[in-house]
Amino acid sequence: MSLLIVGSIAMDSVSTPHGKLERGLGGSAVYAGIASSFFTKPRIVGVVGEDFPTEYIALLKKKKCDLKGMQIVPGGKTFLWKGRYEGDMSSAITLDTRLNVFEFFKPELPRDYRNSEFVFLANIDPELQLNVLDQLKKPKLVLCDTMNFWIEGKRDALLEVFRRSDVILVNEGEAFLLTGRPNLIRASRDLLEMGPSHVIIKKGGHGAFIASRSDYFCVPAYPLDSLKDPTGAGDTFAGGLIGFMASRPRMVDSHFRRAMVVGTILASFVCEEFSVKGTASLTRAALKKRIELFHRYMKIPRVEI
Amino acid sequence: MSLLIVGSIAMDSVSTPHGKLERGLGGSAVYAGIASSFFTKPRIVGVVGEDFPTEYIALLKKKKCDLKGMQIVPGGKTFLWKGRYEGDMSSAITLDTRLNVFEFFKPELPRDYRNSEFVFLANIDPELQLNVLDQLKKPKLVLCDTMNFWIEGKRDALLEVFRRSDVILVNEGEAFLLTGRPNLIRASRDLLEMGPSHVIIKKGGHGAFIASRSDYFCVPAYPLDSLKDPTGAGDTFAGGLIGFMASRPRMVDSHFRRAMVVGTILASFVCEEFSVKGTASLTRAALKKRIELFHRYMKIPRVEI
Repeated sequence: MSLLIVGSIAMDSVSTPHGKLERGLGGSAVYAGIASSFFTKPRIVGVVGEDFPTEYIALLKKKKCDLKGMQIVPGGKTFLWKGRYEGDMSSAITLDTRLNVFEFFKPELPRDYRNSEFVFLANIDPELQLNVLDQLKKPKLVLCDTMNFWIEGKRDALLEVFRRSDVILVNEGEAFLLTGRPNLIRASRDLLEMGPSHVIIKKGGHGAFIASRSDYFCVPAYPLDSLKDPTGAGDTFAGGLIGFMASRPRMVDSHFRRAMVVGTILASFVCEEFSVKGTASLTRAALKKRIELFHRYMKIPRVEI
Repeated sequence: MSLLIVGSIAMDSVSTPHGKLERGLGGSAVYAGIASSFFTKPRIVGVVGEDFPTEYIALLKKKKCDLKGMQIVPGGKTFLWKGRYEGDMSSAITLDTRLNVFEFFKPELPRDYRNSEFVFLANIDPELQLNVLDQLKKPKLVLCDTMNFWIEGKRDALLEVFRRSDVILVNEGEAFLLTGRPNLIRASRDLLEMGPSHVIIKKGGHGAFIASRSDYFCVPAYPLDSLKDPTGAGDTFAGGLIGFMASRPRMVDSHFRRAMVVGTILASFVCEEFSVKGTASLTRAALKKRIELFHRYMKIPRVEI
């Protein structure tokens, strides 16, 4: 099934206790696109400048990303992010953000993208997210992400996005900010009231939680002893999740549970290398193997008391 | 099988966003004892003052706690702790600590306690923990807890306790402080090197992790929409865990996994009420039911990609 991903395409300069990388390929649409490519050929909508390296374009194409919706602004410069992680690397310290061409990003869907059935609206201005939704014919599953900045600054537009989405994806802090509930279950109930059929609350290194009106489910993160760079973990999770869903015939809770596992495992791979290397170089066999290991790791034997 | 629990017996004055309780029954040995009483008749070693209410003694006896090892200091006052929780209640703010008779606590095991097969050394001075170990004949499973204060102040004695324990129980911050590793897997490996066969790392509202040389396993916390007072959750977890193990014939990884679940569920009950009410009033049927729900909540369907 067709998957549309709208978000940032960036170059990231990242340093962590395990090394650093200058101007690596990054951005939410990129991380999500590569993760989803195990299941579908994602249509990427984003913007870059003329400085965007041709090898990054080649890499995305190799990963089956459809780049017809990627705008290249003549004379423009690509979105640059510079950050650092310390200690347990649970949160990034932003050192520099240069939006460049991303500041004036206005997603325009090529005509044949408008029939996309699966849509990931990565974290961009909710007014732009609405604009994308307006261009779509009849999407089957819309997943939207956001951040504190929009929750605080454009709450009304964001709530409209939520009403028109099937799945909303937030982290614990955002869930609290949106609902005032410092409790997973209560926050997810309030978020479900805002319109979506499913709510996912990301807990970083502690995993993720999903709630619908009929189910809830929690996955711990895959335990890594080789965490190198957590940049893009959330977008990789989202891309893996929606990519997996796009490969399923029905949007049922049991598939959402599976999709949470797939997203979790893809996110674990992306954290093991800088930039997208962990997922871009990943084989299907290695992905399957780690899913199998995760099953063993999570398996609760029957408890009789 | 026989279970010995050595720790504090206290009166706690706690306020949370959901209410407050003055001088409620508390202390690590009490929380652990009541949790373990679903599986065994725990032998409690601790100290109280003459002010310790007779109804608390009656409650502990009703919960099948053997109090022969509980010292009552004539004219003494019981350990008092006063604390508050705010927001997501993930950590306590201590308002007052009066050690009173606990300051001079010197655990003395009644003669017939010395053959105890299962032992929970709750968080007390590691020199006292060693002293308890010296009094024991041949324990089958020793579980020890500790805290930052001892890690920083009495590291050598603590490492000796670890060498002589089978299971060590720490939280994430303590694991980091002990090993310098801000990573579950690496920290647990380093902790295993210190001697025990199993290491448990508690993650508060995010669940708990256990590692041995042949297995690792993670349980999320049971998601509560009715968290009232998290005091004693860690000790309840520990008591449920070792109580369950004391009811099993073999100390194998699969039983440790089950014990992690039992501890997790008992901890969820204790958080739903102030003091020990959540576990003291709990029926076996309600415990079984929640374990069953947890199974459903945690169940990962087979993932085929």
